[in-house]
Order: sequence, then C-alpha cells, then structure tokens
Amino acid sequence: MSHHHSEREPLSSETKQALIDALRRIVPADGLLTDEESLHPYECDGLSAYRRLPLLVVLPTEVTQVEAILKLCNELDVPVVARGAGTGLSGGALPFEEGILLSLARFNQILDIDPQRRTARVQPGVRNLAISEAVAPHGLYYAPDPSSQIACTIGGNVAENAGGVHCLKYGLTVHNIQQIKVITIEGELLEIGGNGLDSAGYDLLALMTGSEGMLGVIVEVTVKLLPRPERAQVVLAAFDDIAKAGGAVGAIIAAGIIPGGLEMMDKLAIQAAEDFVHAGYPRDADAILLCELDGTNEEVSAHILKVREILKQSGATEVRTAVDEAERIAFWKGRKMAFPAVGRLAPDYYCMDGTIPRKRLPEVLAAMADLSKQYELPIANVFHAGDGNLHPLILYDANTPGELQRTEELGGKILELCVAVGGTITGEHGVGMEKIDQMCVQFQPLELSQFHAVKEAFDPKRLLNPGKAVPTLHRCAEFGAMHVHNGELPFPELERF
Amino acid sequence: MSHHHSEREPLSSETKQALIDALRRIVPADGLLTDEESLHPYECDGLSAYRRLPLLVVLPTEVTQVEAILKLCNELDVPVVARGAGTGLSGGALPFEEGILLSLARFNQILDIDPQRRTARVQPGVRNLAISEAVAPHGLYYAPDPSSQIACTIGGNVAENAGGVHCLKYGLTVHNIQQIKVITIEGELLEIGGNGLDSAGYDLLALMTGSEGMLGVIVEVTVKLLPRPERAQVVLAAFDDIAKAGGAVGAIIAAGIIPGGLEMMDKLAIQAAEDFVHAGYPRDADAILLCELDGTNEEVSAHILKVREILKQSGATEVRTAVDEAERIAFWKGRKMAFPAVGRLAPDYYCMDGTIPRKRLPEVLAAMADLSKQYELPIANVFHAGDGNLHPLILYDANTPGELQRTEELGGKILELCVAVGGTITGEHGVGMEKIDQMCVQFQPLELSQFHAVKEAFDPKRLLNPGKAVPTLHRCAEFGAMHVHNGELPFPELERF
Repeated sequence: MSHHHSEREPLSSETKQALIDALRRIVPADGLLTDEESLHPYECDGLSAYRRLPLLVVLPTEVTQVEAILKLCNELDVPVVARGAGTGLSGGALPFEEGILLSLARFNQILDIDPQRRTARVQPGVRNLAISEAVAPHGLYYAPDPSSQIACTIGGNVAENAGGVHCLKYGLTVHNIQQIKVITIEGELLEIGGNGLDSAGYDLLALMTGSEGMLGVIVEVTVKLLPRPERAQVVLAAFDDIAKAGGAVGAIIAAGIIPGGLEMMDKLAIQAAEDFVHAGYPRDADAILLCELDGTNEEVSAHILKVREILKQSGATEVRTAVDEAERIAFWKGRKMAFPAVGRLAPDYYCMDGTIPRKRLPEVLAAMADLSKQYELPIANVFHAGDGNLHPLILYDANTPGELQRTEELGGKILELCVAVGGTITGEHGVGMEKIDQMCVQFQPLELSQFHAVKEAFDPKRLLNPGKAVPTLHRCAEFGAMHVHNGELPFPELERF
Repeated sequence: MSHHHSEREPLSSETKQALIDALRRIVPADGLLTDEESLHPYECDGLSAYRRLPLLVVLPTEVTQVEAILKLCNELDVPVVARGAGTGLSGGALPFEEGILLSLARFNQILDIDPQRRTARVQPGVRNLAISEAVAPHGLYYAPDPSSQIACTIGGNVAENAGGVHCLKYGLTVHNIQQIKVITIEGELLEIGGNGLDSAGYDLLALMTGSEGMLGVIVEVTVKLLPRPERAQVVLAAFDDIAKAGGAVGAIIAAGIIPGGLEMMDKLAIQAAEDFVHAGYPRDADAILLCELDGTNEEVSAHILKVREILKQSGATEVRTAVDEAERIAFWKGRKMAFPAVGRLAPDYYCMDGTIPRKRLPEVLAAMADLSKQYELPIANVFHAGDGNLHPLILYDANTPGELQRTEELGGKILELCVAVGGTITGEHGVGMEKIDQMCVQFQPLELSQFHAVKEAFDPKRLLNPGKAVPTLHRCAEFGAMHVHNGELPFPELERF
C-alpha cells in the first residue's frame, strides 16, 4: 500500500520527439495537435479558474489507436489526461504541461440500440442528450440528466459518475450503465460489467465509474434505457422561509413518494432565473421547490394531490401545478438555466458541489450565509434538495486582485462544512483538481492509502491523470499542517506535477 | 498484475501451536474451538455438497479482537474464511483445513437506528429480518429479502451482494447500504462509503460488496431503510404455456410498471409448493406469475387494474388478486417455501443461480429441459422473472453413486448456457466455490488478471478466503483444456489449497 510523491521529472526533448514521431504513425495527420494555438481550447475544462497547456493533443478515431497511444505513453512514462466534452466542473480534464491530452471527441457514434433489452451501446464521445434523442422513437430515454446534457458526453459522465435533476428517483450514472470497455495504461482492452442486476467477480464497473480517468480510458459504454413515463407533471411551491421548504422536502419523502425531481432555489437564484428566462417564478419568495411527479397517469394524479397537500401543510405560501407541458418546461427552464442566470449577476461565478444530510439543511444555509458575509462574496443556492446535494454559486470578479483566491478559500470552507455535518465533498461533480485538498478532510490516511493501492492495481506508474482525485499523503500532511498553523484554511496554489 | 498459483504449504505444527496460543490471548475461552466435534457445524455453508473441517474456529466479540486475529494470521501466513450465518449457497464460507474459520455470529447488535436519516447501523451478525423488525415501529424496513432472510445475516448479505424477491424494484444489497467498516488483513479498520448518493474517491463500497470475503472482513454495516409502502397487493396469474408467462413479464415492464416483486414458477415447482404449504396455486397450470404492486393506495389501485389487463392480454388462463393480507401472505409463502417444497421430491436438490436476458427465457427453458433429459435429472424452475434471475433446482440423490457429480456437471452446463445467451453465472448467490470454473467461461484472462490485481491491492498474501470467487489463470487453463479435449464439460473434484 505504499506510494510515492507525485512530482515528475520533465520529459527530455528526445522523449518528446520520440513521442510525437510515434503518435504520427498511430493517428491520422489531423489527429495530432502540437502548435500552441491549437492547444489553447484544451487548456481547461468547466473549472476555468485552472488552466494549463498540454504538451500535445491527440484525437484518435479507433479503439486500436487508443490502445497504441496508451501503450506508448506507458513505455515512455508520459502522463495522459483523457477528455470528453470538457464540461466537467472539478478540473478532472485539466491537462499537464508534460503530458498528452487524449480527446475522445471523435468517438461519437451510437453503435447499437436494443429496444427489447432497453440498452444502447455507444462510444464515449456521444452526447448525453443525443442518446435520449436517438432512442425516443422507441419510447425510451436515458435517465441521468446533468445540466450540461446538451454538451457533455457519456464517457465523461461515467468518469465523473454524473447525476442530474432526476437522480433522486433514477440514480446516478453508475445505476444506469451496464457494461463498459476500458483500455488500460498497458494498452489492453477490458470488458467490464454484465447484463444482469448482479455480475460475477469484483464490481469493477462501479469502481471505474467516478474514477475520474485514473484507472483506464473508457472507449465504449452500454447504457440502460427507461420507458418514457406516461405522464410527468411539476408542482411549484413558494415559501417565505427556506427552512419550511426544507421541511416540505422531508415530508414528501417521508410520505413514501419519490419524485422524479425535487429541486430548491433560494431568493438570489429565483430572482436571477426569473430575470433571465421569465420562468414564472414568484420573485418575492424566500425559496421555491420544484417537485416533478412521473409515472402512469393514475399514479401521477394521486401523487400530485398528496404532494400539494403536504406542501400546504408545510407552510407554502403558494402551490402551483403546471397546467400544461409548456408551463412544465418553463418551470424547469428556470432551474436548468439557474447557473448562467446567476452568472449574469457578477463577472464570474464558482459552482460548488457538496452533499449534506437533508435534516441539516437549515443550519448549513445559516453557516453559509455567515461565510458569505465573512468573505464578502454573495452566494446563490440551487439544490438537488431531495438528495441533499447542494450547488452554492459564489459570485466574484476574477479581475479584482485576490478575489479568486478568496473564492477558493470560501469554497473550501463550504466543503469542510459539508463534511462537518456528516456529508461529503461531492454530489455529482467529482473531486478532480478542485477538491483534492478537501479529500484530506473527508478521509483518513488509511482510506487514502487504500485508494492508492487500488490505483496501483490498474496504473502502477501513475500515468493516468496523475495528481487528481486522490491526494498523496504528503500533500495532506502539508495541507493539514498549514491548516493547523494558521488557524485558517488556505487554498494552496496549483501544484506542479 | 501478476499472481501465482494458490497452492499452499501445510502449516507447521509450530505455527499451529503459536496460532492457538496467540488466539487464546485475543479471545475469551469460549471464543476458540479446536476439537473436531465442535468444528463440525462449520464444515459447510448452504452448499452442503462441499464439506471441509477448518483448522479451528474463532468467535470474536469485539472489533479490536478481529483486528488482532487478522494481524496475527497475516504474520503467520494463515488463511482466513469469514462466516456469517452460513446460509450462502455457493460455498463462500467453506473452510480450509489449513486455515481458521472466523465467525462473526457474536456481532449481533443493532447499534443505532436513525429514523430521520432512515438508516440503521448494525453489526455484521444481525439477521436480515431482525433489521426490518427493529425498525418497524418507525414505519420503515430494509428492502433486500433473500429467501433465507429469517436466518441469514447482513455481513454475509454484503459479502455476497444478496438480492431477493424485491430487488427488481429496490435493488440488491449494494443499492441498500451506505457505509461499512472493514478490517483489512493487516488488521486495520477502513471506513468506507458515505451519506450521500455519490461519495468521493473510488467506489470501494461497491467493490467490497459482493467480494465474498476476499478483500476484508466486514465488522459494521450502515443500511438504508425505506418507508413501508402504504399498500402492497399481489396478483397471481396462471398460464398454460410458460412462454406466455414470459411474454407477460416483458409486457408489464414495457408498460412502465416496476412491480415490487415479479416471480415465476413452473409446473413442478407449483405442484411441490402447493402440496407443501397449500398456497392456493392452480395445480394444473404450466406456469404461474406472482406480481406484487406496492406504493400509495391510489398508485396500487391503478397498477393492479393495468397489470390484470396485461396478464389477460398475454393469455393468462386465470388472474386472481389476493383479496386480503392473509391471501397475499399465502401466495408469497408458496414462493418463499418453493425450495424446501421441491426438496421434498427427492433426497437432495441443488439450487442453481444464473441470470439471462428476459427475452431469451423460452429458449433457455427449452434447452434446460433437453439437458434435464440428457442428464436424467429432473429440474424445477423458480425465477425472479422481472430481472431474468433463474433458480433451477436440480433433483438428485447423493447416495446414488455418480449422481452428485452428474448434478454438478448439469449445473455447470446450465451456467454456461446462461453465458451463451448473453447472461451471467450469478444472480445473487455469488461465485464462491461452486461457480469458480464457470468464471473461466464468463471472463477472459485479462479481466481475471485485473481481478487478481485488485485482490492484491487489499490482500497481497492472498490469505482471505483463498481460492474462492476468482479462479487462477492456471485453473482456467486446466479447465479449458479438459473442456476442449473431451468435448464435454467435467466438473473437477474439489481442489486442495
């Protein structure tokens, strides 16, 4: 269970040349980018506060090319960062100056749709929403729906175990896939998973899902599809007190109803969304809940009645059921556009992601309000309320000296707050680069060592996305020491690898 | 990714004595069994065709004792097999003559029930059903319900990723737990999992679940609880053709209804169950379906109507909705007692476990009928029909020379049949000792090597349950070679380790 520090020697110029020469033989001419200008689009993912140019970008089109590329990198000791659409929010696809950026963007084919088994076999670069579009003629859809679903791709969804509005009822990515093909750093193809609920052997499918590109490169995904519910309807409830909205969430779940989606927004988010997309939200509410019921026609009718009753009993000042599909879509549009809407309130915003036990919501919100004052940075709140997954949006201006750093410090504090109340530092965005220090707060050295041992079972030279997702014990010691000495949490500058 | 053959040198008598002396210092006097008579109850689990006496049995009562025992075994190179209630059906708890049997039976306390979070923190030796009984006053229950739920314990449920009648709707064990504490072979305590849907780091919770005692010893489990549905009702449908029953299963699922349970029984199973418990089944039917709907009152009413309609359209000769709770329980009693009921038809029976895609059901049943004739052994069929999990019960007489071997050969053929139609060799019983050779059919050497690499990340000396669950490549080579040369599948005699 040993592992060493992740600092690397720079590649020699001979190695770089050998790498480029070999890659030219593996991929077509347009599949290798080396000049600085063409590298720029790859310098960051959705966590744009962190930027680095990769040594080069390679865009294979065939699985055999991926195998050859990884085998080559393993031989030459070159780090590899795999990238889908680059919409990730935790820096999982941030490149290394001394490594290659392996784009899966050209693996964009849906290979097979099996309506009877309700599966689709797709390449990793297929967009999340494109799957649901392709299978719609069969009355089916793919359930996980991250806000970025128009753009994000399924390979990245698996790597980060993406969620979405509907994951309360339908689960995360890990619950909605059944097989993957993965290329190991040794260039070997692993077929992982099975057709049944259970599969024999260790659950490598779950292990790979959410592993953030640290264990292998995904080249094919077989997703599970669900029949489109006969009916879906959404109820909007307004509250004059966010704690009452939190109580309503608990009461709905306690009634044995699992809504298709159960989302909360606070005042700042409501007003921003309303100004941006005119969703029809009550601007003066302190909080709103959006509760979607889906299923058979009779089931939805019954649940709507019950949910409306619970919302009123919980003190909602207004309860509105969307009267038609247009209003349902408008209600959701406000929620789905909440991030960019809030983004209009300041030059920059930083989207956090953490999970807390539902019942701790009021005190966490109060503590966040205090932190917001202390750091002099506004926070808007959008939640997957049903599963306690928070998305605080910190508003800042990167051009004001020190403000980005203050934002990152505040973000770190919020994550530590989540851990302190018994929650976790991630809901659905992954750890990546962003939360690497908070992993030291979430886990003990023994658990971190076991993570490293598992990593070593797949990638003994630690070439796949080095330095992401799981901190070295050395890093944690430094982080912890600084934490203790200064009495305040600093967010260290981006480390060189 | 290297690993070596699993044959072991016998322990020296000095080592044995050192082991016993040290164990006496770790556990109370009644916690160490060494005389042959007291070892006998531990010679097998539910797969009673395989029997072996352990070197000794140790029954700790404290987590610190488990830590010390494992540390000791690691130092002395002594294999360890952990055991819960011993109800497993694949030989996962079969002991080794040269190893210790570590019983978790005395860890039988429910440590904490949190009705608001809907969790219970329990020791591994707590019986599955005892959890639901303890949380019933809060209107909650623990969903996975293996047929052995009266006796089986939660630690074993996690080790085998147990399922049950309700796993179609509510998932396997892995979907119903949120944290575990595990002792590594080095005697260290790992806390795995988190409170949220997602958790940071690699998904070690899923990796440990179903790992059959190969990666660590579970000493605590935090399970998720569900609110008892307001109403549950069951519909029984009879068919004169098992293929029509299969069609009805597909039609129900296609209608967007996920029943709480959806079970099928064939003629032999129906008659055996009816003779045994008088469940009220139609004795002359070729197949029956039991379809349970649960949820809110309105939801169940609506679904019952729809399911009855689908069943009639699918050609059911009779459709009966249980009129009251007594009849509902009677319908389920027949199903839950199907194994012992079938067991009355012959001196012995062998319960198989495999999963197939739902649509391949008719051809798999036909092929099994052929195999039954070929091997001259009757097969009764009981299925978790909704998720394609088969439980063929082979009837035989262990006292007839050669009949057990023929049964095992037939069982192997059935599992290979499952793989051939795109299914898997396990649904919910695990691989253990029973299916170890079929793992060579299910997986390629690369995947098996990756399994061994993962094992090595937890247990480099391979002391935890050695030789179970994942075959050595050497074993697969032998198995494959014999398979090819004789044109027929032999089931090798139980290997010595």
